[in-house]
Amino acid sequence: MNPIILEKEDILNLLDFDEIIGVIEKSFVDFSTGKALMPTPQDIILEEFKGETHVKSAYVKGSKYYCIKIASGFYDNPKIGLNSSQGMMILIEAKTGLPKCILLEEGQLTDFRTAAAGAVAAKYLANKGSEKVLVVGTGIQAKLQVEFLLRIMPIKILFVWGRSEEKAKDYCKHLQTKSPALEIKIVKNMNEARNLAIDIIVTATPSRKPLVPKNVVEKGVHLNAIGADMPGKHELDANILSAAKVITDSTAQCSKSGELQHALSAGVMKVNDVHGELGEVISNNKKGRDDPEEITVFDSTGLGVQDLAIARYVFDKYCEVNKEN
Amino acid sequence: MNPIILEKEDILNLLDFDEIIGVIEKSFVDFSTGKALMPTPQDIILEEFKGETHVKSAYVKGSKYYCIKIASGFYDNPKIGLNSSQGMMILIEAKTGLPKCILLEEGQLTDFRTAAAGAVAAKYLANKGSEKVLVVGTGIQAKLQVEFLLRIMPIKILFVWGRSEEKAKDYCKHLQTKSPALEIKIVKNMNEARNLAIDIIVTATPSRKPLVPKNVVEKGVHLNAIGADMPGKHELDANILSAAKVITDSTAQCSKSGELQHALSAGVMKVNDVHGELGEVISNNKKGRDDPEEITVFDSTGLGVQDLAIARYVFDKYCEVNKEN
Repeated sequence: MNPIILEKEDILNLLDFDEIIGVIEKSFVDFSTGKALMPTPQDIILEEFKGETHVKSAYVKGSKYYCIKIASGFYDNPKIGLNSSQGMMILIEAKTGLPKCILLEEGQLTDFRTAAAGAVAAKYLANKGSEKVLVVGTGIQAKLQVEFLLRIMPIKILFVWGRSEEKAKDYCKHLQTKSPALEIKIVKNMNEARNLAIDIIVTATPSRKPLVPKNVVEKGVHLNAIGADMPGKHELDANILSAAKVITDSTAQCSKSGELQHALSAGVMKVNDVHGELGEVISNNKKGRDDPEEITVFDSTGLGVQDLAIARYVFDKYCEVNKEN
Repeated sequence: MNPIILEKEDILNLLDFDEIIGVIEKSFVDFSTGKALMPTPQDIILEEFKGETHVKSAYVKGSKYYCIKIASGFYDNPKIGLNSSQGMMILIEAKTGLPKCILLEEGQLTDFRTAAAGAVAAKYLANKGSEKVLVVGTGIQAKLQVEFLLRIMPIKILFVWGRSEEKAKDYCKHLQTKSPALEIKIVKNMNEARNLAIDIIVTATPSRKPLVPKNVVEKGVHLNAIGADMPGKHELDANILSAAKVITDSTAQCSKSGELQHALSAGVMKVNDVHGELGEVISNNKKGRDDPEEITVFDSTGLGVQDLAIARYVFDKYCEVNKEN
């Protein structure tokens, strides 16, 4: 029997943000309880086309399926009117190896699962009733991070910083449409972001040098560090991490690819200084925030189990709607 | 634009064995001239289900596409009426990362490209006019090896050995239907295979200990060693290799996964004793057979470029038939 092919539109029509947050939350627990199998990613680098493809796979013991994700970034694509993100997820039956569903998601499910991870982290680590958010970055992930955050926090004011003022304005327009009640303000530089009583800072840029200085981070702030997901990427001053309770998605992965890599190489932290992994906090094996004044950082690099969880969610939902199994 | 999905039946209807031999021949040259990019395969091992999935990718500089192959073996599948081989190939546009074609081939194209490699090797290494073949093994690959060989050699007599006599009989029936003029005989053991003036020996089993002793290999024989394609697999007495001109598909890969691994670990050969790679012989950078009495061995482990070549061939043919591009 051939696999079911889901096109991007089919997939987008099935998604419910609150449900996604739920399945991603559970996936972190699967990972941190050691039930996940995630082989080393395969990288295909096509330098002549500024392109790269990463194959990431994941299986969780007891799961009906495993997932192979093909995720590409081809950075000249926008010049010819194409998205730089491309790719698909493939769900395969664990018992037989039969491909059951091919999700032609063009990188969108990765965007959603990454944004949902930020919401899950804030749920466990930010102060309850957080109202003021600073978002650093104006791209698709910076948008989705806030859209997901709005589901779990009573955000009232959003401060936005972007390298390009034009893009920052577009960003504001987009978010205002999504959330008319939200008060949105552009901050021109990080100095303007000081002393604003911000509760949550979200960074979601491809930066390779720190954008957020330590003096912007007031007491009690939670930071979602989303952008740094490969060696060299860097958004936060390393001293923010050393002064904070640091929670990772995967400490092993963050040591190489997350913000943590820079805190380690700068010598301001050791791996043992990491408080724990998000899955451990969710499953109550590690404490989350235990003081309204402490600073917390969630270092996100992205896990194969999140891909498996969201692909499975979409396929299950498709089957439910279409009464297949 | 979504990729074209080709189901197994569509694919099988497009194939022409002679054309496949041609594209596989060319792929070996691409590999040996260093134009190929083949990242380390990704392995997903599901021990609880006796299942394994390997992700193999390949790109050839200048090619319009690259290929990602998902190839699975789930060895309990036959118990529930399913093939143990499962999987697909995905052709992706090199310039943009856009998936162009998903070939739901369930491992069949791997079978065909592997069999075609045997024919190409025999074309360059066996004596012209070879008439007598001994095939060791009775599975799908043992069948296809002979079917492809028949395209390039005037085979008259086929000797078959298999562990199970019943399967050997089924094998004969299958080949007789495909090639009514062929004389087919079962040999009960390797002793019976001696002094039969055999020209070509093909081994295509999953054996982990040598099946072919040196005394079966007469002067002038060419051997296609197909079965050994991972550490531990083993079909030929290592002394056959040390007495022969050894040509590999990839010397680096055969050193770890082919017959060569055993000749090296037994100390009867060094890597430098390998005569060359098949691509070097095809492109005339290394001599093939230059004496009718010499013994030649082709050590086949399977290359990603062969997957790319056959997937590309099928997709091009589909486009030609359907006037797409």
